[in-house]
Amino acid sequence: MKHGGNLYEIACKYNLMEEEIIDFSANINPLGVPETLESIIRAGAPQLTAYPDIHYTELKKAIAEKYHLRVENIHVGNGGAQVIFDFIRCVSPRCSLVVQPTFLEYERALGAVGSKIKEYYLLEEESFQLNVEGLIEALDPSVEMVVLCNPNNPTSTYVLREDLIRLAEVCQERSIYLMIDEAFMDFFDPHYQISLMPLCERFNNLLVTRSFTKFYGVPGLRLGFGVTCCQAIKEKLEGITIPWTLNYFAGCFGRVLKEEGNYEMKTYQWLSLEKPRFTELLKEIPGIKVYDPAVNFILLKLTDKNLNSSIVKERLLNHKLLIREAYTFKGLNPQYLRIAIKDAVSNDILIRAIEQILLGV
Amino acid sequence: MKHGGNLYEIACKYNLMEEEIIDFSANINPLGVPETLESIIRAGAPQLTAYPDIHYTELKKAIAEKYHLRVENIHVGNGGAQVIFDFIRCVSPRCSLVVQPTFLEYERALGAVGSKIKEYYLLEEESFQLNVEGLIEALDPSVEMVVLCNPNNPTSTYVLREDLIRLAEVCQERSIYLMIDEAFMDFFDPHYQISLMPLCERFNNLLVTRSFTKFYGVPGLRLGFGVTCCQAIKEKLEGITIPWTLNYFAGCFGRVLKEEGNYEMKTYQWLSLEKPRFTELLKEIPGIKVYDPAVNFILLKLTDKNLNSSIVKERLLNHKLLIREAYTFKGLNPQYLRIAIKDAVSNDILIRAIEQILLGV
Repeated sequence: MKHGGNLYEIACKYNLMEEEIIDFSANINPLGVPETLESIIRAGAPQLTAYPDIHYTELKKAIAEKYHLRVENIHVGNGGAQVIFDFIRCVSPRCSLVVQPTFLEYERALGAVGSKIKEYYLLEEESFQLNVEGLIEALDPSVEMVVLCNPNNPTSTYVLREDLIRLAEVCQERSIYLMIDEAFMDFFDPHYQISLMPLCERFNNLLVTRSFTKFYGVPGLRLGFGVTCCQAIKEKLEGITIPWTLNYFAGCFGRVLKEEGNYEMKTYQWLSLEKPRFTELLKEIPGIKVYDPAVNFILLKLTDKNLNSSIVKERLLNHKLLIREAYTFKGLNPQYLRIAIKDAVSNDILIRAIEQILLGV
Repeated sequence: MKHGGNLYEIACKYNLMEEEIIDFSANINPLGVPETLESIIRAGAPQLTAYPDIHYTELKKAIAEKYHLRVENIHVGNGGAQVIFDFIRCVSPRCSLVVQPTFLEYERALGAVGSKIKEYYLLEEESFQLNVEGLIEALDPSVEMVVLCNPNNPTSTYVLREDLIRLAEVCQERSIYLMIDEAFMDFFDPHYQISLMPLCERFNNLLVTRSFTKFYGVPGLRLGFGVTCCQAIKEKLEGITIPWTLNYFAGCFGRVLKEEGNYEMKTYQWLSLEKPRFTELLKEIPGIKVYDPAVNFILLKLTDKNLNSSIVKERLLNHKLLIREAYTFKGLNPQYLRIAIKDAVSNDILIRAIEQILLGV
C-alpha cells in the first residue's frame, strides 16, 4: 500500500530516527493532540480493561449534535478508511466511476467487491477543477456508484455545493449512489461551507464519509464516520459491522468534540495565516508550479524536466524532510509532489531546503 | 448485538456508575493492564499525531517470535472479531458448519457473506464435550468451512489436539476450510498445549484466530491476529484489508509481548489457584450445576426451574454484580448463565450473593 506518512519505513530505510524527520507527506493538523484527548489517554489506561460500549452511543450523540445530524444516520468506523470500505461494500456496485486523481483506497475498496471501475479525470489544464457537467455526461447507464473526494486529495481542489447538488440530483434520478469523501472538509474555510452532509436527508442515494483524525491531528487514534439516510444501506451496515469497531480512546472522542473549546479556532487561525503565506513563498520559487490549495495540503509540479519528485524527495530527506511523491495517484506523473501545510517554522525550513535543491542557493 | 461486557448500557439502565459494578459478564483477565502497555499509553498521546506503520512490522515480528510463526503467515486485526470477519470473508463459503453453542459472531460473519449455515451441537448430556467423530460424520459434501472455538465460549470446554488433527486431516482431504478460534487459548494450562497454531504450516486449509485483549486484560485496545499458510487466503486478505487497521497503541503491542516479563506467570499463578477454588465453591451451592471450566470462565446451569438467568441477573445487579445470561447462545436455554473467573475477593462476593439469592441465606 502506497501512502504518505510511513515514517517507520522511511526512518529504517534512511537510517534516521522517526522523531528527527519533519513529515510533510501526511496531511495532518500540526497543532497536535487535543488536550481533552491527552487527558483521556493519560487517565485512560485502566479503562482499557472494559469493552467499549458496543453502540458508541455517547460518541454518536456528540457527532449528531456537532454536525446537526440524526444519530440513526451516523456510522462510526475505525478510521475514515473503514467507513469508505464499509459503504462501498454495502453498495457493491457492479460498475463505478471514480474522479481521479484521488485517494487510492476508493479503488482498493471497489476492487474488493469486484466492481468494474471507470475513471473521470480532473485535468491539469483546468487546474484540476471538477467540471460537473462533464462528469454527468460521463455517467453511462452501467455506472451504479460515483465516488469523489471533496476537497480532493491530492489536488487540494474543491467542488461548490450547488454543483454537487446538481450531481446528487442526477444520480438520484438515475438510481446511482454518490459517495463523497469529506475527510478534509473540516479544514475548509468554515464561512464558505460546501459539505453535502447537511443534505443527507434530502438525497437517499448520498453517502458522506468523514475523518476526525486529520483535523484533530491524531491519525494513530483511528476514527471516522459516515452519514446516510438510505435504509437499505443502513440495514446492510448492520449485517457487516464488526463488533467493537472503535478502541476505547476513539470511543471517548465525543468528549473532545464537546469539551475541546478552542482547538478549532486555533486551527483556523493557523491555517488562514499559514496557507496563503506558505503558498506565496512556494510560488516565488522558480521551477515549481503551485496549485492553489483549498485545505491543509498543496499539490506542486516541478517544471524543470531534469528534476522529478523522487530526486527531490531523496534530497529533502538529507534535510530530514519527508514529502509525498504524487506519481502513485492516477493521472499524475513523477513531476508532481504533495506537501502538507505545517507550522510556520517547519514550512520555512522546507522552503529553504527546496530553494537550495532547486536553485542551489 | 448481544454480548457480555456492555457496562455502559447496564449502568444507564440500572442507574449505576460503571465503576461500581463488578463485571463477571466479560471473560477478561482481572490482572489489569500490563505495565509496559500503561507506560506506552502514558507516554504515547503525542505519538498519535503520526500514522501507525501500515504494515505493523515490529508487532508481527514480536508475534512471530513469541509463537514460533512465520511473519508472512500472520494477519493482524482490530480485535479478534476483525480477524474472524476477515478470514470468513476471504473463504466466503456457500455452506458452513458451526459447532454450537458458541460465540455469536461466527454466524454474523458467515451471514454477511451469504453463507448457508449448518449447526453441530455440543450436548448437555455429554457435558458439552465435542465428539469429533460425530462432527466428521455431519460433514456432508456441501460444507465448505467448519468453524469452532477452542477452548469454547461459553461452555469453557476444549478439544484435544489429536482430535483436532484428525478433523483437520479430514477437512484437508475434502477441501474444507477449518477455522479454529483460539481467543482463550492463552488461558489454557500451558503444560497441556492443544493449540493448532503450531501446525498451521502442515494444513493448508487451516485458519487459526487469536485475541490478545482477553489474556492481557485490555479489550478496549482492540487487537487480535490470525494465522494461515494458505496462499489463496493471504492474497484475498491483501485485497480486503483496510489500511491502518490498528491504532497506535495496539500497534505498539509487540513491546508488551517482548518486555512484559511476568504478566503471563502471574496470570497462571492466579488462574491455577482461583479456577479450582472458585469452581469448588460454586459446586457446593445447591441449585446450580457447574460445568468444569478449561479456562477463565464458567458455564452454570440453574437446576431450580422456578429460577432463570434473567431473575438471577436482576437480583445480582442489586449487589452490583453483572453476569452473562447464556440463552442468547444457540442450544442453551434461560437456565444457563456464564461467569468470568475474577480475583478471589470478587469471586467470594459473587459466591455470597448467589447463595443469598438461591438459598435466602
